[in-house]
Amino acid sequence: MGSWGPRTVVPVDVRKKPWEQELPLHNRWHPDIPAVAEVRVGELFRVEMVDFSGGAITRDDSAEDVKHADLSGVHYLSGPIKVVDRDGIPAKPGDLLAVEICNLGPLPGNEWGLTATFDRENGGGFLTDHFPCATKAIWYFEGIYAYSPQIPGVRFPGITHPGLIGTAPSMELLNIWNERERHVEENGLQSYKLCEVLHMRPLANLPSAKGCLLGKIQEGTPEWEKTAREAARTLPGRENGGNCDIKNLSRGSKIYLPVFVEGANLSTGDMHFSQGDGEIAFCGAIEMSGFLELKCDIIRGGMKEYLTPMGPTSLHVNPIFEIGPVEPRFSEWLVFEGISVDESGRQHYLDASVAYKRAVLNAIDYLSKFGYSKQQAYILLSCCPCEGRISGIVDSPNALATLAIPTAIFDQDIRPKTSQIRAGPKLVRKPDVFKCSYDGNLPITKNPAAAM
Amino acid sequence: MGSWGPRTVVPVDVRKKPWEQELPLHNRWHPDIPAVAEVRVGELFRVEMVDFSGGAITRDDSAEDVKHADLSGVHYLSGPIKVVDRDGIPAKPGDLLAVEICNLGPLPGNEWGLTATFDRENGGGFLTDHFPCATKAIWYFEGIYAYSPQIPGVRFPGITHPGLIGTAPSMELLNIWNERERHVEENGLQSYKLCEVLHMRPLANLPSAKGCLLGKIQEGTPEWEKTAREAARTLPGRENGGNCDIKNLSRGSKIYLPVFVEGANLSTGDMHFSQGDGEIAFCGAIEMSGFLELKCDIIRGGMKEYLTPMGPTSLHVNPIFEIGPVEPRFSEWLVFEGISVDESGRQHYLDASVAYKRAVLNAIDYLSKFGYSKQQAYILLSCCPCEGRISGIVDSPNALATLAIPTAIFDQDIRPKTSQIRAGPKLVRKPDVFKCSYDGNLPITKNPAAAM
Amino acid sequence: MGSWGPRTVVPVDVRKKPWEQELPLHNRWHPDIPAVAEVRVGELFRVEMVDFSGGAITRDDSAEDVKHADLSGVHYLSGPIKVVDRDGIPAKPGDLLAVEICNLGPLPGNEWGLTATFDRENGGGFLTDHFPCATKAIWYFEGIYAYSPQIPGVRFPGITHPGLIGTAPSMELLNIWNERERHVEENGLQSYKLCEVLHMRPLANLPSAKGCLLGKIQEGTPEWEKTAREAARTLPGRENGGNCDIKNLSRGSKIYLPVFVEGANLSTGDMHFSQGDGEIAFCGAIEMSGFLELKCDIIRGGMKEYLTPMGPTSLHVNPIFEIGPVEPRFSEWLVFEGISVDESGRQHYLDASVAYKRAVLNAIDYLSKFGYSKQQAYILLSCCPCEGRISGIVDSPNALATLAIPTAIFDQDIRPKTSQIRAGPKLVRKPDVFKCSYDGNLPITKNPAAAM
Amino acid sequence: MGSWGPRTVVPVDVRKKPWEQELPLHNRWHPDIPAVAEVRVGELFRVEMVDFSGGAITRDDSAEDVKHADLSGVHYLSGPIKVVDRDGIPAKPGDLLAVEICNLGPLPGNEWGLTATFDRENGGGFLTDHFPCATKAIWYFEGIYAYSPQIPGVRFPGITHPGLIGTAPSMELLNIWNERERHVEENGLQSYKLCEVLHMRPLANLPSAKGCLLGKIQEGTPEWEKTAREAARTLPGRENGGNCDIKNLSRGSKIYLPVFVEGANLSTGDMHFSQGDGEIAFCGAIEMSGFLELKCDIIRGGMKEYLTPMGPTSLHVNPIFEIGPVEPRFSEWLVFEGISVDESGRQHYLDASVAYKRAVLNAIDYLSKFGYSKQQAYILLSCCPCEGRISGIVDSPNALATLAIPTAIFDQDIRPKTSQIRAGPKLVRKPDVFKCSYDGNLPITKNPAAAM
Repeated sequence: MGSWGPRTVVPVDVRKKPWEQELPLHNRWHPDIPAVAEVRVGELFRVEMVDFSGGAITRDDSAEDVKHADLSGVHYLSGPIKVVDRDGIPAKPGDLLAVEICNLGPLPGNEWGLTATFDRENGGGFLTDHFPCATKAIWYFEGIYAYSPQIPGVRFPGITHPGLIGTAPSMELLNIWNERERHVEENGLQSYKLCEVLHMRPLANLPSAKGCLLGKIQEGTPEWEKTAREAARTLPGRENGGNCDIKNLSRGSKIYLPVFVEGANLSTGDMHFSQGDGEIAFCGAIEMSGFLELKCDIIRGGMKEYLTPMGPTSLHVNPIFEIGPVEPRFSEWLVFEGISVDESGRQHYLDASVAYKRAVLNAIDYLSKFGYSKQQAYILLSCCPCEGRISGIVDSPNALATLAIPTAIFDQDIRPKTSQIRAGPKLVRKPDVFKCSYDGNLPITKNPAAAM
Repeated sequence: MGSWGPRTVVPVDVRKKPWEQELPLHNRWHPDIPAVAEVRVGELFRVEMVDFSGGAITRDDSAEDVKHADLSGVHYLSGPIKVVDRDGIPAKPGDLLAVEICNLGPLPGNEWGLTATFDRENGGGFLTDHFPCATKAIWYFEGIYAYSPQIPGVRFPGITHPGLIGTAPSMELLNIWNERERHVEENGLQSYKLCEVLHMRPLANLPSAKGCLLGKIQEGTPEWEKTAREAARTLPGRENGGNCDIKNLSRGSKIYLPVFVEGANLSTGDMHFSQGDGEIAFCGAIEMSGFLELKCDIIRGGMKEYLTPMGPTSLHVNPIFEIGPVEPRFSEWLVFEGISVDESGRQHYLDASVAYKRAVLNAIDYLSKFGYSKQQAYILLSCCPCEGRISGIVDSPNALATLAIPTAIFDQDIRPKTSQIRAGPKLVRKPDVFKCSYDGNLPITKNPAAAM
Repeated sequence: MGSWGPRTVVPVDVRKKPWEQELPLHNRWHPDIPAVAEVRVGELFRVEMVDFSGGAITRDDSAEDVKHADLSGVHYLSGPIKVVDRDGIPAKPGDLLAVEICNLGPLPGNEWGLTATFDRENGGGFLTDHFPCATKAIWYFEGIYAYSPQIPGVRFPGITHPGLIGTAPSMELLNIWNERERHVEENGLQSYKLCEVLHMRPLANLPSAKGCLLGKIQEGTPEWEKTAREAARTLPGRENGGNCDIKNLSRGSKIYLPVFVEGANLSTGDMHFSQGDGEIAFCGAIEMSGFLELKCDIIRGGMKEYLTPMGPTSLHVNPIFEIGPVEPRFSEWLVFEGISVDESGRQHYLDASVAYKRAVLNAIDYLSKFGYSKQQAYILLSCCPCEGRISGIVDSPNALATLAIPTAIFDQDIRPKTSQIRAGPKLVRKPDVFKCSYDGNLPITKNPAAAM
Repeated sequence: MGSWGPRTVVPVDVRKKPWEQELPLHNRWHPDIPAVAEVRVGELFRVEMVDFSGGAITRDDSAEDVKHADLSGVHYLSGPIKVVDRDGIPAKPGDLLAVEICNLGPLPGNEWGLTATFDRENGGGFLTDHFPCATKAIWYFEGIYAYSPQIPGVRFPGITHPGLIGTAPSMELLNIWNERERHVEENGLQSYKLCEVLHMRPLANLPSAKGCLLGKIQEGTPEWEKTAREAARTLPGRENGGNCDIKNLSRGSKIYLPVFVEGANLSTGDMHFSQGDGEIAFCGAIEMSGFLELKCDIIRGGMKEYLTPMGPTSLHVNPIFEIGPVEPRFSEWLVFEGISVDESGRQHYLDASVAYKRAVLNAIDYLSKFGYSKQQAYILLSCCPCEGRISGIVDSPNALATLAIPTAIFDQDIRPKTSQIRAGPKLVRKPDVFKCSYDGNLPITKNPAAAM
């Protein structure tokens, strides 16, 4: 009868550089990047992808590659993929593209991933003022489980998902993005308090030709120059989906994406074996190469019917997600809270970002009592399936955020014990391997990571 | 053999005013408020409580009582309860108080609750700039389920929990609170952008004798005057627990609270039949009277062993929570995202509060396509068991927050449909009863709700 | 506004005998037993019930009351309840009665229950040939949790449910029951192999005036005599529901019952705080008094539309159940299997009862390695929320049944350990209190428990 | 760094016959079948397998191949695999072999499977007296989901698992098997009532050289002849594990198998994409080829420490299973019950097999009201993730079994409806393609499927 299975529409070879792949990759959002493949609604197809860094960060035990990572190239995406209906008519602007994630996973022979914290001067992270050094943990996969030699005593099932999935923006939308992000970049620190807290991190990442990869658009051509100047970076999630980092977007999930250009031009990448809500360490999921098996449907005119009007434009935007039915069942969670009072004791007003930062810091402090270094705990909370919630956002002046950790991921009981039960010293974990040569006296500049 | 069951240590009579109860209630945090009851570790005991408003908001179909609510008295708490060990020795400062919630629910004959939005001039809420009017929905309970005549077509199982549970602060801690909150109050709007977004809401709620209830401390005495001047309002959650509004803190949960005064002086109140993450409407859970069945344990010296150091003090603070194993299993969630770009299109920098606001607005907009008014949707998302997550907090400049709604709470299928399946008009829900006479031209003042 | 909550239609007073209750109870199925209460569809109402034994088995530490229990009176049921529609028209034969369980639990002041094994000569149980003695464990409830002094080291959340719920049979159905059960009783052991395995247990329990309670039918009247002679015992589940012992029939469940008599005449009783699949010890759930909050609906003509035709009759029978959404989430289960080879090594053909017996025996043997006596393990597996599955029923000659135990109910890790991890002796539980004076030489008779 | 992932120790090529594979397969249990591969504890390795029939049943739309299937060859197993510890010392008799299922799935390019009912004269099934014909449904996989053109309107996530996994028996154990199964075969129908109910099915399947495949033992040699005469068929699950058909034995599960021969000699096969409890149609799971990723550990001396003594022998037997944490979350189940009264109205005594048969028949009858043929429903309940429970096994004379179906697998709402809601005709499914030429007048013989 012959074989039966999904058709691979975008293959990758992880031994090759991103720019050497058979079907060219891209790392920018722009309507003019041509589709590299075409699929029909109802068809099950397979998309392979390199990891977010295109293989630049390797499976060795040194964080040097992380420290000096050239972030101008991330994320390397597979696609764009043109979607047509059963009659061959492409998705049209105004339609809604329903994408079902039927299956996904690592590529055979590449069952590993990594979690890293960038250097404070080169990318940073949510807690970069506490953890300014570049560090790296390698995770090995045993089927659904991951473990890391750098963080002993922990093993957990991943909720694997693509960190990044979206459709190509129209020029109208792209212009809006560039304008509003340029405004932040230019007006800088003075009015954005969180940036003071996060010190070194870039305010925005504007279009830049450096590191730019534009798929089938030939580098060096005038078209490439123009497109590179306009094309949006992939770092932030935006109205087209993109880097949404929704940690439960796993098998059986469905994404309803707005269509801005003919054919929809779906792109995806940045596969995560697992991620905690917030992806706090920035390179903070278990980053890996991998594959997706997808099935598309077109809801004609669905943007207006189902999505939200976008301010002064006539667009309706923001994807909607249906979370799939298959997940690890964790029966016990330990929950840490943070309120919007920062580490210096200063009161912030209903600020969920500050509250979440404090919740994470409280959890890190707690885990450090069980034999983990704080750096290990930071990495772990960034990539394990923990949940970050906005619990209270109305009780002035305190926003209250919570971080819930499934206790089953540890090989020891991490719950508080009454003295009767508490017996013997707590486990001493193998000392962690994260070394830090950061001197802590960096000058604060407006945008030190301009290369990003 | 006689009967066997929990001992009721704090009874309430919901037909009486808060200040008429047999054991006096209180609505402030202060170390000098005397305990009204004593329990031993290991003992199962029952605490009854009035609703947060002490019965001021009633089960009729007018929101007049909400509009003119005197918020100076909330929340009315049961307690303080002194906790001693099996030898009668009280909990001591530095200990950790483990409180297990064995059971909880509405009081017999009072199986109903309410969700309300305050008027923009009197309390407001997370979306008060969009929904400035006082409105009220009454919910009736059918065992685990709630339904409301004001929001037809919805019925859901509640994850019932106490909105507020905490221990008495020490004077040291109380002084820190008062100082930092006064600083916000006095420095006001200029540096707190979210407040601009939320317009009318008070920045903080400082101690005030108005509406003050101090348990066994007799009103009119010098002690009362002094305590009322110092005692913290119960609105924000703080380092002692308090109004943490953790929606999953239901049957089988355990709370590890720091002990600041001898006996721990546990207080609790503000029972919620159900709440969505964030409790966005402010009076936003399904507010009710109710009972808790609790069991305590003392972990001697546990604050230092398990909690986080509090900046310049020698205290270790912030409760830890263990979520119980019993919850509704929802297999399908519809997830809405928001990024930190506000309604005017202005870019905010990694601001999770703005992102969550946009996620909620997107969800409200979506639900309005299924026959609900936006005001109905606002109330619903505030009190149904929806989840608010911080999904991305590192991808500059956009924080990304998500709101996940369990689809099973609706009597219609609210998922997007392909045109083939979509047949006939969408359900038209009964028009909602929320009337709004708000004129939308209120002057923006610094703290209009000073009475709060 | 006054109070709001469910109307109590059947109250009980557990300090009174079953025959002294304000509304008379009954312990037989018969169409002529008159309704004691009436409810309307859509109305939330409350039914209280004594425990299955009507209080005969008490909360002391002796199993003497179990050993000599008079089983002729079980189960004492609350009802019958007549159900009418919104126009007052009763449910009619042929209709389907939908009963939703909105809430349920123990009666205040009676937060305890018991699990027992009957003596081999007086009731027995699934493993009576291994455990022939009367024993009793008392369970105390701490909200959702139960613990027993007789079985230390175990505590679990109950999935509380009514063991018995059903509608009154018609005379036609009653006659069918009596005829087919009499046939078993009279033809006895020779062809029913399992009975050889279970030795002492009665084959059936035919109508008998002894212990008979018929609600409003006055004892001593000719009507009583006739009814008592015909009325079916409540022990087995049958086509009207009855003693179905479905352990997940908890909050939020719905039962679709056939209606055989005008008004449906719903009866319920035998509340279980918790039960394992199979209720193997016979008095094998955590038996308690309690209450149900119910809501009914009538599906006119629903029996023919939804139920299964019953052989030669024109009836459509067998209730259908919808399991509710609220349950403990257990993430880990330890599963024991049994095949249809009995303890003597004899091969049975695809016999799921034998296979399940072996699975249970294997699990008991395993738990005995962790400090429990086998008698303790037997009781525990009968009442904890373990799952009994028919895993394979086609692979001749072996049926394969499995018993899955949630590991979280134990205070020790009961999973097999590799030698590296295994350290120190296993926990020795407090010796159990079950004493057994059974001499093991009882004559095997056809129906020793005729009194039942 | 090179690649990293599991080592494939048993590859298969599904285009080749079972006897043509690179590493020879086997389809019998015998201690003398030599290992084809060796693995170390802690090592992640991959085992590929053909489907149970070795490819004999194909992906076409005719059930002719099912009707005339030669069942003498099933199941084709991969292995045996020898397991050694980190020092290279093999597992020894008396040890316990812990096998973790880290991952599993279909083979790339073979993402399909089949469910079939055998002809009553050639294998039959649990309901062969109701459904005597050979039929076949093909299932196509879309990642975690399966759908079938033969059973429209249904799509569900599979809980994929190996139907068969076990260790080689010792000669002692093998002799016990052969003796007890021969006893059934020879003593036949007279005392085994269920067989009367199931009519045509073989009582046991004794060793037979026909179809026998013995791995590395060369056919035609005297060793082959002797082994073939002794080696047990793989159909029934037994004390070594084997065909246990535990439907939840999916990713993250762990199996503790007794070791009877040096090296343990682990074999596995009969991969199921999905199966309902009981696998009622016999060829009743979604049968497929596939792969497992496994990790082993040896618990020295673990048989005596953890397993159950086996009657008169010195062996300790029966595997123990730990179910993994990843599964579909179904929030709604519709539950059908059956009692041990057979279709003719005859009362059986506490017979769970009869009760389960009635529960399944009731469910089939119910589903037939929603547009499915009964044959379609039979196949569906055999392979979808439904749960079969032994709910009551003590309430003489009725055993009570239940079958729970997750409602989410249907594209229509299959719950009973009140007349108000019920609108319009029920969906008419596309007529099924199952044709049946069975004449229903077959003579009842003792063992018509002797060829099996």
